[in-house]
Amino acid sequence: MQDIEPRADHAVTLCRSVGHRASAWFRDREALVVDKKGAQDWVSEADRGVERLIREGLARDWPDDGVFGEEHDPTPGTSGFSWVIDPIDGTTNFVNGIPAWTVVLAGVRNGRTEIGIIHDPSNDETFVALRGAGARLNGQPISVADKVPLDSGTVAVGYSNRVEASNIVPVVAELVSRGAMFHRNASGALSLAYVAAGRLLGYLEEHMNAWDCLAGQLLIREAGGCVEDQDADAMIAHGGRVIAGTPAVFDELKAIAVSAWPHEGQPTGRQP
Amino acid sequence: MQDIEPRADHAVTLCRSVGHRASAWFRDREALVVDKKGAQDWVSEADRGVERLIREGLARDWPDDGVFGEEHDPTPGTSGFSWVIDPIDGTTNFVNGIPAWTVVLAGVRNGRTEIGIIHDPSNDETFVALRGAGARLNGQPISVADKVPLDSGTVAVGYSNRVEASNIVPVVAELVSRGAMFHRNASGALSLAYVAAGRLLGYLEEHMNAWDCLAGQLLIREAGGCVEDQDADAMIAHGGRVIAGTPAVFDELKAIAVSAWPHEGQPTGRQP
Repeated sequence: MQDIEPRADHAVTLCRSVGHRASAWFRDREALVVDKKGAQDWVSEADRGVERLIREGLARDWPDDGVFGEEHDPTPGTSGFSWVIDPIDGTTNFVNGIPAWTVVLAGVRNGRTEIGIIHDPSNDETFVALRGAGARLNGQPISVADKVPLDSGTVAVGYSNRVEASNIVPVVAELVSRGAMFHRNASGALSLAYVAAGRLLGYLEEHMNAWDCLAGQLLIREAGGCVEDQDADAMIAHGGRVIAGTPAVFDELKAIAVSAWPHEGQPTGRQP
Repeated sequence: MQDIEPRADHAVTLCRSVGHRASAWFRDREALVVDKKGAQDWVSEADRGVERLIREGLARDWPDDGVFGEEHDPTPGTSGFSWVIDPIDGTTNFVNGIPAWTVVLAGVRNGRTEIGIIHDPSNDETFVALRGAGARLNGQPISVADKVPLDSGTVAVGYSNRVEASNIVPVVAELVSRGAMFHRNASGALSLAYVAAGRLLGYLEEHMNAWDCLAGQLLIREAGGCVEDQDADAMIAHGGRVIAGTPAVFDELKAIAVSAWPHEGQPTGRQP
């Protein structure tokens, strides 16, 4: 842990600092240049700029760490520790003016996520997990919802152009038929953070990239929830499916997902 | 208009003021008493308290106006002008800690909505429409998205225990098959406000109560969007379906809704 805590402290400060810059871009989004990466897939100069600021901040204090991010080429490291950046998770919300987007940073070593940070600048909420040391929101411990059944709670879902979009439909249908409400706020990381904080019961997405999910998965695990055991390095290389939930509903959610996605984790579109 | 503008000014001030009180309840929600009204239908002392504060504020300045609200009995009026209150739209979000809930107030006369206010205290955004005078967000004019097709935008959906929940599934399926992203943030009023502000392309819900939708429907109409022509008094009495969208997608959305909901506006559960 001794080298994890200073890295985490530094990374939280960094996420909060670049969050201010991102918020300034958000307020002035009329002036943003937005490019289309693919069907329903957008990127703005804010995404690229925020990732650049995070990379500069990490390189100053941890120049030997590797860095993977959504918007720039990977930087190999020599320390054995790597950072995985989603500068703005929920870019569609961001460019359209919906205040549900986050700055996401995960720290990985030996195929395991050690640090997970999801920062929501619009609501000044910073969700932080360190492996083995619990999950916190703005410094206060958080935990997943306790014993709430599916028919008294809400499960968030996500989908993207990397999978067959219609694969989300049986998941929605099954959630509804079991009495759950479904939620889709277009920021997977924010939804995962909400599961960790006990605000949602779970999250299902057929394929997420590492920068979207590693931080949130660690948060949920450290908040007492359940996630699948996945190798973080494999997730960095290929992404994969995300099934996460409270202990009370995880098995049900996994059954729903497995039934809907028989060929999980095989992106059909752009490779991550 | 001459008696509408002072009513609107007063009502906006009132919504922002009770929004502060609601935010205090939200921050201290661990202490809130929450009751179950039905399956996936919650009410807290905050809902009742905010409605009471709005009723007191309206009664002080407009004692002859009628008042309809979600949580208390109707107050008949003699002025011909009525107020329709949703003290907290998105109660599930509110009680679970998700900062996507709104204070909603509509002013109705002769079966027409004259004033629509949706206030989001978490993000300090107040959406206001006066019939014939346009729609504004925090005082700045807003308009719906311009010429964005379904396959480049997002459509929000809603459902409740007042209809057959599975009726939402064909709507989601059809949106996805047409290349649209779908959104469900569990505050119908907030979603309608986002359509008015150009952040979403449309909104579909099989049955909404008047307090959930009248303000948002006026906002969308005044922001250049399309909504069905519905008598506001009939909506107060029974609620009804809500189909709203930009001019570019409204007809498509209506076709999707009509196909999914052949018997629209017939609540199957609790009567509004």
